Amino acid sequence: MSDLDDVFARLDERFEAHLELLIDYLRQPSISAQNVGMGEAARLAAGHLVDRLGMEVELIPTAGYPMVLGKSPRVDGPTVLVYGHYDVQPPEPVEAWTSPPFSPQVRDGRLYARGAGDNKGQHFAHILALEALRETHGRLPCNVLFLLEGEEEVGSPNLRPFLKTHADALGADLVVISDGPLHESGASVICFGNRGFLSFELHAKTARRDAHSGLFGGVMPNAAWALVHALASMRDRDGRLTVEGLLDGVEPPAPAERAAADIFPVDVEAVQRELGLTHLDQPKDRPFADRLMFHPTLTINGISGGYAGRGSKAVIPAQAIAKCDIRLVAGMEPEHVFACLERHVARHAEDVEVVRGQGTPVARTPLDHPWAGALREAIVRARGAEPLLQPMLGATLPTAAFQSVLGLPTFLVPFANADEANHAPDENLKIACFRDGIRTAAAIYVSIGAAGRVPDPVPQASRQV
Amino acid sequence: MSDLDDVFARLDERFEAHLELLIDYLRQPSISAQNVGMGEAARLAAGHLVDRLGMEVELIPTAGYPMVLGKSPRVDGPTVLVYGHYDVQPPEPVEAWTSPPFSPQVRDGRLYARGAGDNKGQHFAHILALEALRETHGRLPCNVLFLLEGEEEVGSPNLRPFLKTHADALGADLVVISDGPLHESGASVICFGNRGFLSFELHAKTARRDAHSGLFGGVMPNAAWALVHALASMRDRDGRLTVEGLLDGVEPPAPAERAAADIFPVDVEAVQRELGLTHLDQPKDRPFADRLMFHPTLTINGISGGYAGRGSKAVIPAQAIAKCDIRLVAGMEPEHVFACLERHVARHAEDVEVVRGQGTPVARTPLDHPWAGALREAIVRARGAEPLLQPMLGATLPTAAFQSVLGLPTFLVPFANADEANHAPDENLKIACFRDGIRTAAAIYVSIGAAGRVPDPVPQASRQV
Ligand SMILES: [Zn+2]
Ligand SMILES: [Zn+2]
Repeated sequence: MSDLDDVFARLDERFEAHLELLIDYLRQPSISAQNVGMGEAARLAAGHLVDRLGMEVELIPTAGYPMVLGKSPRVDGPTVLVYGHYDVQPPEPVEAWTSPPFSPQVRDGRLYARGAGDNKGQHFAHILALEALRETHGRLPCNVLFLLEGEEEVGSPNLRPFLKTHADALGADLVVISDGPLHESGASVICFGNRGFLSFELHAKTARRDAHSGLFGGVMPNAAWALVHALASMRDRDGRLTVEGLLDGVEPPAPAERAAADIFPVDVEAVQRELGLTHLDQPKDRPFADRLMFHPTLTINGISGGYAGRGSKAVIPAQAIAKCDIRLVAGMEPEHVFACLERHVARHAEDVEVVRGQGTPVARTPLDHPWAGALREAIVRARGAEPLLQPMLGATLPTAAFQSVLGLPTFLVPFANADEANHAPDENLKIACFRDGIRTAAAIYVSIGAAGRVPDPVPQASRQV
Repeated sequence: MSDLDDVFARLDERFEAHLELLIDYLRQPSISAQNVGMGEAARLAAGHLVDRLGMEVELIPTAGYPMVLGKSPRVDGPTVLVYGHYDVQPPEPVEAWTSPPFSPQVRDGRLYARGAGDNKGQHFAHILALEALRETHGRLPCNVLFLLEGEEEVGSPNLRPFLKTHADALGADLVVISDGPLHESGASVICFGNRGFLSFELHAKTARRDAHSGLFGGVMPNAAWALVHALASMRDRDGRLTVEGLLDGVEPPAPAERAAADIFPVDVEAVQRELGLTHLDQPKDRPFADRLMFHPTLTINGISGGYAGRGSKAVIPAQAIAKCDIRLVAGMEPEHVFACLERHVARHAEDVEVVRGQGTPVARTPLDHPWAGALREAIVRARGAEPLLQPMLGATLPTAAFQSVLGLPTFLVPFANADEANHAPDENLKIACFRDGIRTAAAIYVSIGAAGRVPDPVPQASRQV
């Protein structure tokens, strides 16, 4: 215990300096979607791993931006693979920011900058924690592989191939990821999985050109109608997905997941108030937590066709498009889901084609996984309260690749405030969250080191997502 | 007979001069949507009526552009109200024209200019025919009221109020309109009515702002889905309109309309080829002519919501809009139809509002109307062949106002070639069509004058649309 007290004391002493270091890191733009500052940011991150942690660091090229991989000096004990990303979202619309996105500014207890929470502030907290552990004890309490990618914000297209090619160098006992927010109450969360993702487009085409709705109305098929009926055939008015075979294999929550979901606190009224909802989505009788954890969605992200300008135009559209995504839950697999979509559209939607987009499998680690205990204990030590256990995050992270390629259990332990405004103007990280994040990271490494090598390294269940 | 032969001979002599006069008229832009050249065009038209026809002419202000109303010197006999419009469609995209839209050019037997067919070339043919009649016989064969409006291309918002206010000055026996095309075979057509029109928008709104499809997918209702289901509830996959009450009162075709539709020639394959259709619209077993004459449509003119840019965006749209129009058939009335839409949407489409647009009633003159014989005879004399009788035009003209406000039967006798490209670049009028149009107009006035005052001026049926 006292070993961690020393570390916490050291972190308190250094906190102002740590904040300055983060500010320097945030000053470096690293916009993967726009190819701005990527090499510089990768080298900055690698420099911190070398200088502060004495790691052996490689910048490994991919088909896109390089991976930064740091390996700590060998100690006896388990190995943690820490994953984060050094790229950030585009800052646009820049004029909507109170202070410029790459000129970090502290206001009212928050640090405002693009990447503050997503994800530089969070993985940098791990670096600072490890530095303090090393300085205090002369060595790290466990082995650490630090992996930072530069393409998370563009869908991690090269992560899975990278893990496959470098599987030998990535032997570890567990993966820890700090990304996303704490619970809205400020409580810590351990998140054991996340929904998967499949994007696709529906393309309706009925004619070579648009035509006049009076002269050809009733004669020429309307691409917007074809699209509307194709969509309506895939999800009914009551919110049930009606694509044949799509739900085959969906796994119900395990008893521990069911129990955790039932007690996971949500202020439904606050959500409705913030978004301005008069009601929740169909089906209306579904428990709130289940909506995000145990049920797939079919979202129309955008729909367009025909005349969308001012006033009206008497036209029959020849083409119309819907952009959609599906969030997958346990037991659903992107390839199978897309095959169902293709078959459904071929059978039920004349004049419509389905075009595949990106796919990411579901990630799921059992709630009773042996490492969960060490993480809970660490959080209690760092923050003085039990974390909430969240079986599944509604959004999608590229964690499934660590499970399926490396066979490792993954744990998401986020540090950012719930209103971090990631992907939006005025992205920010509460100063207190940054401080608590560094403390939590330090406690996690100590706790994992103390637990030693877990006898049953990876239950088979967690490989099967 | 011989009186018309003299007129035809005179028209032949003058044809080159007539073409030059039309070219001068077309040089004058008159774009109502852009307020370009409107006053000049109205004064040009009025000048022709005064100078060539000796009419008493008024330019009558409206809430928009002025009406031009000419009244011929009184003769014994029936009165024809001729209606046309001096405004034209915007010429954009100008770069798509082979020759500039307001620099008329003759190429390959066609006169290319904005307004050539729609509508300057057609109502100018009437002016030239009347001039020749007057010169040949010293007087016109019947009374003529010549009404030209400047807002047809923007929906004739002031025509109905104008007719109401000036009903006393507009006493007549029938209305003749030359607008739109001949049959695609080149045959003349008498069209006895046109479908009505109602435009509306559906506005779906489910939240104050868009949200992330992972973090809120399953929680936040999706405006695009609300819109899709609202639309799908209004027209089923088989093309049947399913808005309660919408079809109440639809009148089946009268026996003469049924018979005329059955023999109305259509080259369905040519239509499919030109538009690039693999099949006709639902329902598939409907006779072609019936699609445009006896059935209402519900057309989605445009649909939009959420992200429509390149790539994809994981967003749940908070708002989505569909712009729609309905083409009304006999027995349907815009106010009633809109009331049905409002009730339907209130009952069946949560989070969706319906917003009314423009409405134009159906126009319908019985095929056995006494004046029809005179018009048929005129066309046979001018063109040597019987016209086709078309009970109903699929598109909408503002003719219903003449029926309901003035109680007059209306007859559409178009002169333009079927490929006139009105509302498009390279609008054109075949020189031969212009010549035949002038001849046809001359024959019409002679034929109406010869028929004398019709004993039963307006059957009650034609007032009831
Ligand atoms: Zn992000
Ligand atoms: Zn027009």
